[in-house]
Amino acid sequence: MIKQLGLLALLVISTVSHAEEQAVAIALHGGAGTIERGRMSAEMEAEYRTFLDAAIVAGHEQLKAGAPGLDVVVDIIHRMEESPLFNAGRGSVYTWEGTNELDAAIMHGETRDAGAVAGVTTVKSPIALARAVMEDSPHVMLAGRGAEVFAREQGYEIVPEGYFGTERRLKSLEAYKAKRQAGLEPEVDYKFGTVGLVVLDAQGNLVAGTSTGGMTGKRWGRIGDVPVIGAGTYADNRTCAVSATGHGEYFIRHTVARDICARMQYAGASLSESADAMVMKELVEAGGSGGIIAVDYQGNVALTFNSAGMYRASIDGEGNKVVGIYGDE
Amino acid sequence: MIKQLGLLALLVISTVSHAEEQAVAIALHGGAGTIERGRMSAEMEAEYRTFLDAAIVAGHEQLKAGAPGLDVVVDIIHRMEESPLFNAGRGSVYTWEGTNELDAAIMHGETRDAGAVAGVTTVKSPIALARAVMEDSPHVMLAGRGAEVFAREQGYEIVPEGYFGTERRLKSLEAYKAKRQAGLEPEVDYKFGTVGLVVLDAQGNLVAGTSTGGMTGKRWGRIGDVPVIGAGTYADNRTCAVSATGHGEYFIRHTVARDICARMQYAGASLSESADAMVMKELVEAGGSGGIIAVDYQGNVALTFNSAGMYRASIDGEGNKVVGIYGDE
Repeated sequence: MIKQLGLLALLVISTVSHAEEQAVAIALHGGAGTIERGRMSAEMEAEYRTFLDAAIVAGHEQLKAGAPGLDVVVDIIHRMEESPLFNAGRGSVYTWEGTNELDAAIMHGETRDAGAVAGVTTVKSPIALARAVMEDSPHVMLAGRGAEVFAREQGYEIVPEGYFGTERRLKSLEAYKAKRQAGLEPEVDYKFGTVGLVVLDAQGNLVAGTSTGGMTGKRWGRIGDVPVIGAGTYADNRTCAVSATGHGEYFIRHTVARDICARMQYAGASLSESADAMVMKELVEAGGSGGIIAVDYQGNVALTFNSAGMYRASIDGEGNKVVGIYGDE
Repeated sequence: MIKQLGLLALLVISTVSHAEEQAVAIALHGGAGTIERGRMSAEMEAEYRTFLDAAIVAGHEQLKAGAPGLDVVVDIIHRMEESPLFNAGRGSVYTWEGTNELDAAIMHGETRDAGAVAGVTTVKSPIALARAVMEDSPHVMLAGRGAEVFAREQGYEIVPEGYFGTERRLKSLEAYKAKRQAGLEPEVDYKFGTVGLVVLDAQGNLVAGTSTGGMTGKRWGRIGDVPVIGAGTYADNRTCAVSATGHGEYFIRHTVARDICARMQYAGASLSESADAMVMKELVEAGGSGGIIAVDYQGNVALTFNSAGMYRASIDGEGNKVVGIYGDE
C-alpha cells in the first residue's frame, strides 16, 4: 500500500513536471495601425473581439491536445485569411491597379526551415502555400506567376479573380488614389492589416506565420516584410518566434523579427526587453510604426506595438489570456 | 615664427588624424563554390585574377578620392554585371524555362536605407535599379513585371531578350536539366555565382551591394538570398557591411548578413569572429555552403567561405591587398 502510494505520488509529480516542461503558448495579431476608440462601430468592435477570442482559444486547445505548431499556425491563420475582417486572404487590400496580391511566410524554430510566397493572386490560402514551399520545394521564397504554377502543380485550391475582394477595401483604394492624385498624403490607414500567429507547441517547438494583402495602393510588384524571413516572420527554438505587422519597409530594413531573437541570443535580453528595444525605441526613432507578437521558448508572450492599436490575443505558458484592440487596454 | 610652426604642426596632426579616422576599405566577391585547381584553364584563371585585381584597385581609388560608397558599389558591381565571367547581368545562369531572371540589393549603413529587385529580365543594371528603388520609391523590394514598369518609368536602360545570355551558361542549364530529367542530382555547380561589393567610404559610411542571376534551373519564380535584406546583403555603420554568395536558401533561413552584424552589435564579437561563427560553424552544421565578404567600421575585412573556393579581392583599411580564387591561397 505504501509502495502503491509512493508510485502514485511519483506519477503525479511526473505528470506535473511533464506538463510544466511542455507549457504551450500562443499569440496572434490581426494588424496594427491608427485603431482608436470611436473610429469603428460598437458592433464591429464586438465582431473583432469575438473573432480574436475564438481564434486564440481554438489554437490553444489544439496546442494543448498536442497538435504540431505548424498545423495550428496554418489552421488559425487560414481562418483569419477567410475572414473579411483582416487584410489577408479575403478582405485583402487592393494594389494601385485594383488587384489583390498576397504574401505569406512560415518558419519552424527547430530546423529553421522556412517557406514564403509573394504576390500570389489566385491561391486560396497563401499560408498553406508558404508551408508547401517549405516542405515540398527546395526553395524558401517563390514569387508571382511562378508561385502560382507551383501551387497548381501541388494541387492547392485555386480561387477565381475577385475572390479576395471586398467593398470596404475597394473604397479604401478609391480614397487612397483620390488623395494621391490630388497630390495629398492619404489619411487612410493604408500601411497595415496583416495577420500573424506564433506558438510554442507541446513538443517544445516555436513556429511563426504571417499572411497579408500588403499595403493599399502598392505598386510595381512591391514586396513587403511579410515574406522576408527575418523581417516580418522568424522562429528559432533557442530564443523566440515573432510575427510583425506595420509599415513593412521599416521592418525589412531593421530585420525586426530576427533582431528580437538576436537580442535574446547574443545580448541575453528577455523577450519583453528585446521587443521593447526594437519596437518602442529603434523603430520609433526610425519612424517605423507597427507592432509584433512573440512567444519565447519558456512560454512568455510579448504583444508590443507603437501604433494606436493592434488587434491581438494571446494565452501564455501559464494560461493567462489577453484579448485587445486599443493601446489603452 | 614659433606660432606659425605650431600652426603647421597642428595642421599636420590634424591631417594625419583625419586620414586615420577616415580609412577606406573595400572587398568584393564573384561567387563561391567548387572552384578547385585544375577545373579551369590557366588562361581563364588569369582572366579572373586580372579582372578581380583591376576591379578592387579601381574601387579603392574611387574611395580614396572621396567618392560616396553608394557610387562605388554601383559602379564596380555594374562592371561585374557586364562581364560574362560572373553570374550576374551578362553571364547570368538560366532558369528552368531558359530565361534569365536577375536579383540585386543595396544597403546604406548610415540610414539603413535599402533597395532590392527580384526577378527582373530586361533591366541592364539590376544593381542600379536596386539603388533607384531605395532612393526613388517608397518601397524596399520590387519584383517581376512591376519592377520592370518602375525601371521604365525611371528611365533605366532596357536591354533586349537574350542580352544576358551566354553559351557557357546555356550549356550548364542543358547539363542540369539532363541530369534532373534522368533523376540524378546535378554535379554542376548550380547554386553559386553572384557578385558583391562592400565598402567603408571616406565619409565613414558602410555600404553593401549584391547582384546575381540566381541558381541554374531555378523554378517557380524562386527568389534567393540576394534581394532579401539581412540574408545576402546588410549594412549598418555601427558594425559592418556584408555581401554573401552561396546556397541562398540557407542564407535566408540563417539571416546570414544580418547575423554577422548582430554578433558584433550584441555579443561584442570582432568581425572575423562573427564571420567565422556564422560561415564556418553555423552554416557548416546546417549544410549551407558558400561564403561572405565583409568590412567593418574600422576598415577590417573578412573574406570567409566554407566552399572549395571563392572569387575574391580586398584592400583593407591599412592598404593590404588580397586577390584570391582557391581555398588554399
